[in-house]
Amino acid sequence: MNRLPLPTVTRLCNIYELLMKLESQSGSFISSSELALRLGIAAHSIRKDISFLGEAGNTGAGYSVERLKGLLRERFAFGEEKRTCVVGLGRIGSAILENSQFAAGEFKIVAGFDSSINRLETIKTDVDLFPAYQIAEIVKRLKINFAIIAVPPSSAQDIADRLIEGGIKGIVNFAPVVIRTNKDGVFVKNMDIAGELRILSALTSNRSV
Amino acid sequence: MNRLPLPTVTRLCNIYELLMKLESQSGSFISSSELALRLGIAAHSIRKDISFLGEAGNTGAGYSVERLKGLLRERFAFGEEKRTCVVGLGRIGSAILENSQFAAGEFKIVAGFDSSINRLETIKTDVDLFPAYQIAEIVKRLKINFAIIAVPPSSAQDIADRLIEGGIKGIVNFAPVVIRTNKDGVFVKNMDIAGELRILSALTSNRSV
Repeated sequence: MNRLPLPTVTRLCNIYELLMKLESQSGSFISSSELALRLGIAAHSIRKDISFLGEAGNTGAGYSVERLKGLLRERFAFGEEKRTCVVGLGRIGSAILENSQFAAGEFKIVAGFDSSINRLETIKTDVDLFPAYQIAEIVKRLKINFAIIAVPPSSAQDIADRLIEGGIKGIVNFAPVVIRTNKDGVFVKNMDIAGELRILSALTSNRSV
Repeated sequence: MNRLPLPTVTRLCNIYELLMKLESQSGSFISSSELALRLGIAAHSIRKDISFLGEAGNTGAGYSVERLKGLLRERFAFGEEKRTCVVGLGRIGSAILENSQFAAGEFKIVAGFDSSINRLETIKTDVDLFPAYQIAEIVKRLKINFAIIAVPPSSAQDIADRLIEGGIKGIVNFAPVVIRTNKDGVFVKNMDIAGELRILSALTSNRSV
């Protein structure tokens, strides 16, 4: 099986998310053109993406929703619990810690870290909290694979390095600085709110004149 | 002047952000290879992107930092204050409302909205707060161009529609649902934390075997 390109992986994730919402109707089928319509992606892209998964069995009625979900789960380990931590428990970090989206989903937040002991003592949460100097040790011990970083920009890269040292495979970074990793098999998604607003504003000004 | 493609706009935004950080040294020059190294982008892409801006005057020493910043400001209206609002003042929304990143930057948060009057009365902030039913009216009156949405997924599209009705040009959406707009000149960036984690986890499982 070959490694898939990022746009294909992203689209297959979107397909999986859509199929999860359709869960109630079991035994049903969905066509590539219905997937295309709902996701805003060309139907031929969807057929090609799904073909990477193996024999998805497209009949006249379309793909079996159950079979397609099963293939996606198998390929990407969807549905398995992913142990996740939050580093930096300021306003954004502690909001994420308590986000109900995570309480229900497969990304279970099992630890929070902050460099301020005072902050660790005052936050009320059911999640176990630890001082930031223990990151590598706790990540390794609790077998945490994913992390959300919400620390000041000056310490974000150092925090990422320590997370990766502990064995983290994926990082979502809210610090307004680009985190880099050269380690194979470790992926970072930088989510800079002000940076995204800047791109939106540039697109707005980017008119044909 | 032609409309530029999204990857070019994104890279030019990244170049601008980098140049802002270098602001202290005036009268200085920067080469495309130095930009390339710092941004992790190929130098020929950078030269091509910058060529879209007009005569950037690349000498032996590279581009004049001041001139390049000036061209980017002119093309994309960077540096001008962008009036921004936050809709949905739960934990994430109120954290963004108070984010110091915005206090200093060009995206000035001038209004917050929530459907709960009780919540509007209890939040302590210097930002003016309004009930959600006034969105279209207030956005128009205060000439707000950008919005950050942090409402539950079920109401996100409706909120976006009302923001756009008021004249919003760009939306950053934190609700875990894809917001769509068909209006020309309106751009949406969906920032779904759990969705990004899912893509990261899929990439992690996406190994050549």
